[in-house]
Amino acid sequence: MHRSLPAVAAMFSLAAQAQTPAISDADLAIAAQIRDRALDGTSAWDTVASLTSEVGPRFAGSPGDRAAVAWAVDKLKQLGFQNVRTQDVTVPQWVRGTLEVAITAPYPQPLTAVSLGGSIGTAQGAIAAEVVQVADIEALRARPRSEVEGRIVYIARRTARARDGGEYKAAASGRTQGASAAAKLGARAIVIRSIGTSSERFGHTGTVKYVADVPRIPAVALANPDADLLERQLALGRPTTLEIRSTARDLPPMRSANVIGELPGSGAPDEIVLLGAHLDSWDLGPGALDDAAGVAIVTEAVRLIREMQIKPRRTLRVVLFADEEFVQSGANAYAGQPVAEIERHVVAMEADLGAGPVWRFDHRVAEEALPGMGAFMRVLEPLGIRRGSSTADGGTDIAPLRRLGVPVISFQHDASRYFDYHHTANDTLDKVDREALDQTVAAYASTAFLAANAGGDFGRLPPTPAPAPANPAVPVAPR
Amino acid sequence: MHRSLPAVAAMFSLAAQAQTPAISDADLAIAAQIRDRALDGTSAWDTVASLTSEVGPRFAGSPGDRAAVAWAVDKLKQLGFQNVRTQDVTVPQWVRGTLEVAITAPYPQPLTAVSLGGSIGTAQGAIAAEVVQVADIEALRARPRSEVEGRIVYIARRTARARDGGEYKAAASGRTQGASAAAKLGARAIVIRSIGTSSERFGHTGTVKYVADVPRIPAVALANPDADLLERQLALGRPTTLEIRSTARDLPPMRSANVIGELPGSGAPDEIVLLGAHLDSWDLGPGALDDAAGVAIVTEAVRLIREMQIKPRRTLRVVLFADEEFVQSGANAYAGQPVAEIERHVVAMEADLGAGPVWRFDHRVAEEALPGMGAFMRVLEPLGIRRGSSTADGGTDIAPLRRLGVPVISFQHDASRYFDYHHTANDTLDKVDREALDQTVAAYASTAFLAANAGGDFGRLPPTPAPAPANPAVPVAPR
Repeated sequence: MHRSLPAVAAMFSLAAQAQTPAISDADLAIAAQIRDRALDGTSAWDTVASLTSEVGPRFAGSPGDRAAVAWAVDKLKQLGFQNVRTQDVTVPQWVRGTLEVAITAPYPQPLTAVSLGGSIGTAQGAIAAEVVQVADIEALRARPRSEVEGRIVYIARRTARARDGGEYKAAASGRTQGASAAAKLGARAIVIRSIGTSSERFGHTGTVKYVADVPRIPAVALANPDADLLERQLALGRPTTLEIRSTARDLPPMRSANVIGELPGSGAPDEIVLLGAHLDSWDLGPGALDDAAGVAIVTEAVRLIREMQIKPRRTLRVVLFADEEFVQSGANAYAGQPVAEIERHVVAMEADLGAGPVWRFDHRVAEEALPGMGAFMRVLEPLGIRRGSSTADGGTDIAPLRRLGVPVISFQHDASRYFDYHHTANDTLDKVDREALDQTVAAYASTAFLAANAGGDFGRLPPTPAPAPANPAVPVAPR
Repeated sequence: MHRSLPAVAAMFSLAAQAQTPAISDADLAIAAQIRDRALDGTSAWDTVASLTSEVGPRFAGSPGDRAAVAWAVDKLKQLGFQNVRTQDVTVPQWVRGTLEVAITAPYPQPLTAVSLGGSIGTAQGAIAAEVVQVADIEALRARPRSEVEGRIVYIARRTARARDGGEYKAAASGRTQGASAAAKLGARAIVIRSIGTSSERFGHTGTVKYVADVPRIPAVALANPDADLLERQLALGRPTTLEIRSTARDLPPMRSANVIGELPGSGAPDEIVLLGAHLDSWDLGPGALDDAAGVAIVTEAVRLIREMQIKPRRTLRVVLFADEEFVQSGANAYAGQPVAEIERHVVAMEADLGAGPVWRFDHRVAEEALPGMGAFMRVLEPLGIRRGSSTADGGTDIAPLRRLGVPVISFQHDASRYFDYHHTANDTLDKVDREALDQTVAAYASTAFLAANAGGDFGRLPPTPAPAPANPAVPVAPR
């Protein structure tokens, strides 16, 4: 893949077929060097180790969140980033407190469970009620009120393992929408099978989204072995009751920050190629895969280019977003900058699907930019990456930019094992594979360089409206 | 392996070479039928499901322990056992209460940890002290008092995965003896890396053994990812401090019971082939592998023989022992029966190494019985089982019988994954493989039948003294 420098004469050769982006053979050669340097070994794993060891859990609004912001500012400076700064973000503050869930009949047993993010607690001490099992959110909505009212709903939906992680999104609707769907039918609480692919005994958290005009009810997820246990007791056909005690609650909003650092462009410094990841994690664990790995991938991608003394034409900007996990305060604050700022973003990419390896190259770019996208594959194919679609949503933190018209590049990481660990206490450093992480850095770094140096750009996407905000009564960061 | 009935003429043919045991070809044919029936599928998994679902955690002295005794009496009767009865056992009662362990410097983080069984709590609120790391129990003992006094000792010993589980015993000395070894040098508490082979985030409990004349200090085990984290902070070379808060404590002794059921012998009902397992579990989880699987294996082995309308010559006795995990009150009570009772035991075997499959056939029998032991392999070899040694200790619950002279047969289950789950909250039903469990039943059932029908017996072992009792100030069941 290393091409001779005379190939520089072929610069913009692709522009003959497409206006944008036009990638030169010389830049492809440099991108291949970046890629191969990354494959030789990066310091990305050390960054994951540093964030998970020196900060650990860093849920929005928590002391760990503030420690993470300080860590990130120091780390970006230490790694040679320029224009290192923070963007203030106001984040909601939810605390899970304590949770006890137990089967009380027919055979009493304690269950391993976690409150879903944003869940209310059981203010009056405990909720004790009979359980009604439903297969999924659709089955819940089809139930008559008489079968649900006064009960605790249990959603039994399993999440299948899949390389593209697509099953997660399908299953997660029960988590996000189940509480209000159950409450509409008079349920007192909702319990779901964890939206995770592991049979290890960890509850899998994630946000519950309450609908505005519906009573809020407590929402918890059972570890998969405990969901099995509940189902075995339910299968006996006898009345099965649960007791739930939770002190989960909202506290006043707190200050947090997006942390930003750059490698300024040598030719077009006002044009930005954004590499994003999120700095926050859930409170249950140190978030090694979600998303310390992403933080490490994007910072290492840019650090490596700088270390190789390569000077990309456009600015490479790393943004470590606040509060991705809960209500995306950081992403919304970032996208809430003046339009002139947003328009400087040529393309955005985000690493938030674990530690790799990458297996597919997706994007969403303007129609007229599509013919140029194939050129990226000349650097990516040797990494075992295949071409995907141009229908990517980009990822949670850059979706608001995409909705404003910013094109996105989106790498699919192999998510086969990701949902074993994601959103659990078990998302620890030992789950991060150095080699896969380096392959991922190779993909992001080479691609970011090509995007920064491409002649022409990726066009603009048609603006799309933002979805309705989740949990409207929960404090959301100002735009 | 199915031999014709005329082979009955060959009965006692082996007795020509060895006095005991002498196994006929007819019995080998029946044993092969038992084996093959088991391989066709047993109800052992259902028994594991029943105990873990209808009882769950059943630590000695807890309400679950009493529920387990009631379950076992019902289950043995339901499965057609005769002479179903309980032997009263007094068990100590330890409760772990709550535990919080956190690194307080250089980088504060909560740690996932469990109290070791029998550990005292932190009576004065919390213990906060600097950590001194040692490689293992031997390295601890070699430390000068000046390096340990006033500190919290951390034992970093890892447990390697091994089919024979041998690494567990080696590593466990740090757990059992570490507290008193550290206290002798003035330590305030001891923290160990979990004696388990999994990197999932579970603390691995097990008993601490306090020496009589040494101060008792709190003893906890860190989940392996948390041990990694502590080691990474210690590796920075800066003072590293831990804070430990524990409400673990002893409560007054409680009543429990060994549960016994039999298939009476058709020819020599006073002679007993004992099949043991333990009914109790640790408090952290439902103990599917440890030892609901063992309970299922031995009960199913005998149930299957009865269902096939086979009438063994000697009595097959299943003993489900109380309190194996803590101070072996049940095993000691059983072995404390009058000598005449003990002498009725021809041989004993125990299932307490998970859900199989079995890969090795060990035993300890009298010298003169050794030549006859090879005959068992004719039924076991097709199960993929190889011949082991005659130096088996038999297992925790039958060791007191062995020390009194009762020969033992001991199957090595494949323990490669056993110590991933054993003694953790994660020892749940989904970890039990039906096929492996059935193979294990095949081994125990066919062997128990051969032992019951063997002409001659296994001799007697030379009596050996019992080891010094653990935790002498902890109430121990009367002998």
